[in-house]
Amino acid sequence: MKIGVYPGSFDPITLGHLDIIRRAAPMFDEFVVAVMINSAKHYMFDAAQRCDFIRRSTADMPNVTVETHDGLLAEYTRQRGATAIIKGLRAISDFEYEFQMALINKKLNPSLETVFLTTSSDYMFLSSSIVKEVGRYGGDVSGFLPPQILDDVVQKMRV
Amino acid sequence: MKIGVYPGSFDPITLGHLDIIRRAAPMFDEFVVAVMINSAKHYMFDAAQRCDFIRRSTADMPNVTVETHDGLLAEYTRQRGATAIIKGLRAISDFEYEFQMALINKKLNPSLETVFLTTSSDYMFLSSSIVKEVGRYGGDVSGFLPPQILDDVVQKMRV
Amino acid sequence: MKIGVYPGSFDPITLGHLDIIRRAAPMFDEFVVAVMINSAKHYMFDAAQRCDFIRRSTADMPNVTVETHDGLLAEYTRQRGATAIIKGLRAISDFEYEFQMALINKKLNPSLETVFLTTSSDYMFLSSSIVKEVGRYGGDVSGFLPPQILDDVVQKMRV
Amino acid sequence: MKIGVYPGSFDPITLGHLDIIRRAAPMFDEFVVAVMINSAKHYMFDAAQRCDFIRRSTADMPNVTVETHDGLLAEYTRQRGATAIIKGLRAISDFEYEFQMALINKKLNPSLETVFLTTSSDYMFLSSSIVKEVGRYGGDVSGFLPPQILDDVVQKMRV
Amino acid sequence: MKIGVYPGSFDPITLGHLDIIRRAAPMFDEFVVAVMINSAKHYMFDAAQRCDFIRRSTADMPNVTVETHDGLLAEYTRQRGATAIIKGLRAISDFEYEFQMALINKKLNPSLETVFLTTSSDYMFLSSSIVKEVGRYGGDVSGFLPPQILDDVVQKMRV
Amino acid sequence: MKIGVYPGSFDPITLGHLDIIRRAAPMFDEFVVAVMINSAKHYMFDAAQRCDFIRRSTADMPNVTVETHDGLLAEYTRQRGATAIIKGLRAISDFEYEFQMALINKKLNPSLETVFLTTSSDYMFLSSSIVKEVGRYGGDVSGFLPPQILDDVVQKMRV
Repeated sequence: MKIGVYPGSFDPITLGHLDIIRRAAPMFDEFVVAVMINSAKHYMFDAAQRCDFIRRSTADMPNVTVETHDGLLAEYTRQRGATAIIKGLRAISDFEYEFQMALINKKLNPSLETVFLTTSSDYMFLSSSIVKEVGRYGGDVSGFLPPQILDDVVQKMRV
Repeated sequence: MKIGVYPGSFDPITLGHLDIIRRAAPMFDEFVVAVMINSAKHYMFDAAQRCDFIRRSTADMPNVTVETHDGLLAEYTRQRGATAIIKGLRAISDFEYEFQMALINKKLNPSLETVFLTTSSDYMFLSSSIVKEVGRYGGDVSGFLPPQILDDVVQKMRV
Repeated sequence: MKIGVYPGSFDPITLGHLDIIRRAAPMFDEFVVAVMINSAKHYMFDAAQRCDFIRRSTADMPNVTVETHDGLLAEYTRQRGATAIIKGLRAISDFEYEFQMALINKKLNPSLETVFLTTSSDYMFLSSSIVKEVGRYGGDVSGFLPPQILDDVVQKMRV
Repeated sequence: MKIGVYPGSFDPITLGHLDIIRRAAPMFDEFVVAVMINSAKHYMFDAAQRCDFIRRSTADMPNVTVETHDGLLAEYTRQRGATAIIKGLRAISDFEYEFQMALINKKLNPSLETVFLTTSSDYMFLSSSIVKEVGRYGGDVSGFLPPQILDDVVQKMRV
Repeated sequence: MKIGVYPGSFDPITLGHLDIIRRAAPMFDEFVVAVMINSAKHYMFDAAQRCDFIRRSTADMPNVTVETHDGLLAEYTRQRGATAIIKGLRAISDFEYEFQMALINKKLNPSLETVFLTTSSDYMFLSSSIVKEVGRYGGDVSGFLPPQILDDVVQKMRV
Repeated sequence: MKIGVYPGSFDPITLGHLDIIRRAAPMFDEFVVAVMINSAKHYMFDAAQRCDFIRRSTADMPNVTVETHDGLLAEYTRQRGATAIIKGLRAISDFEYEFQMALINKKLNPSLETVFLTTSSDYMFLSSSIVKEVGRYGGDVSGFLPPQILDDVVQKMRV
């Protein structure tokens, strides 16, 4: 059984993330969206809320599951028996960092591959940070978020 | 009437910023230097001081005005009836970020163009952060700042 | 009078080029699409044909003119009294080369600015070379070329 | 059945290519190494020889097949019912070009994904061109090529 | 007498740093590893500890000395009579930042050169930050740190 | 004795090359400018002429010698007992390629280091190719070439 792991903060999940999930999930038997918890980071949404947003956005994809992990990704994928880590690439700065992470994850777990998908050109500008920045000032974020979670995210961002 | 908006923190304005203003302002009827205020950022100089520094440095350029904005750049340019956002590019890392911002600003305000000018090779190494780092240690920053504001900036940095 | 010059090979003009022209032309009083002739390069379409394709594609834009030039761009823009060179940026490799060209053109003609626009995300993958490669193998290029010239270009590519 | 296609010139196959094949093949039911033929390019080894080198180097991998294709990759993957294109990334310049190709291939065949693997750090400097350049001058290429084909490649390169 | 200065945080020194020291030190008569102190940064190990780790890791290299400096690197190299600053490059993002620093250091101290060495491919993924992140979660960092300091670093990271 | 090798085509030597030589030569006891000959490349100036241009431009630097080599750089540096290869970096595309070459040269000759210097910002746009392109059209190249060789180069380029 081939298991793919798509790790990230998902604070919150955007249409860019969802596009990657929709394209990558069919390549695996099980596709785990892994919500990483890093106690050194400050999140707008707590882990339970981030998971809930992902579950509501991926409800129509039967082989997608959502989990949280507090620790090393390489360790998590080992425990989970994952075949591959999946990452979306938007641009060079992504690539640099992700390339480095892929090498270190391979060093820590040699049987693990990281596979990259290109972000669709429609979402190349999109990141959770930009959504939060636009939302904080009351800008229109409806083109950036899954419709299932739009109202809940907007309500939170404007508080 | 063609209005250009040159947004930034300008904390403080450097000779690199001034070079972009001097080259870009003639392309527009009105050229607005927009001092952006982001409550999540910590500035060395408050908004009034940053504006004052820019006004003194651009006193000889009649079509240049200085304004502050606390909010989304895309919204501000819409209100201001701007034709274009102007940005100076120094290097790749600039380009990556600015490219992303240009795409999202176009998404938020489709009638708005972002135009980029290359930074002169004399100022390619220059940023407000580097000026502040050099100044904090008492290094010579006279080659980096407009002469009109040099003394005031240096005095503040050494406090 | 502000004159913008948009130089290139345009072998042939693509929807990506046309998008840049449509967005940049309104910033100038006169907007010249400059078809550069380089005797060291091999073109699929001769200069007259490339100009004709551009004229048919820009017929609805009254301030756009099309010219050819065999020589240095810096010299041409000087003769033409141009305010700025316009370039579309797709990606990093573009940026590198264009940045270098902008610096040398400024060295050769100090009064000249090069301004860059970001390519729309819809056309980020597009270049004349790719159109020719797809066309040579009989692939569908209708999404890449202005409709006014599609048939003529396709006919030539399949010969 | 999941089919992966790994396209390239393979002129000749290097240990870097072989590393990608070894890591990517297990993710698919069938893994096709597609030797692309481009009449505009000059190859050191003809298509039959390049295929033979790959077959000998991958003899121990039962789900790997080798095919040639003269035409568009997007069209070929469609005919072949491929799930994904696989590419190895070495560095930024690779990334730029491959990102562009991935976008255009998705445009030409929307059901097709391109997935990227990072080249192992041991092979990051390696390309067929560099092997040929080193070999032409009689340098030692034994660390760059599969042992099964080393002698045949070296013999040819020194002619 | 040629003096080389290798500046950094070294929080803590990794096998990547040590590789650069081992390769660069023979090019100079005296090779100073300069532990920079920046009061605005938070370190895991204090300056004395970072120096001790470096001294223990370079005990077999007679022309290597370790010093701390709290201030501008350009000023420090001037006082020290340094011939060159040495930096290791891992990837593009390194290069961007280091290139900018090299230009500003040359501006501040025109007689000073910055010379770059490429990081060995074995350590291309390695940085002090990544070691700390892996260590914090109890991952195996023995492949990343000099054996002389491994136990001390690990003990501290797990506290 | 420390020997530095600065390899290149030098077709012809520019002020950018000369700037690197002037800054790097004092770091070595002997500094060899190595004019590489590649039978697959077409040069404007033959090897003897390229050497003569370099000798005339470096006549005031006693530890600089000029040699030609037809073969692998790694082999040449081994024969020559070189301590290091010196390269000037202008921009990212340079860096990519040079990084790859540095890794492969280290693979072929493990005792050899490649050290990079940043190109001065005044010459960041400069390359032999651009000089030749500007010269071919009769543009002013006096700011790009050593005065000792200017007339000879210009005469040849206009033929």
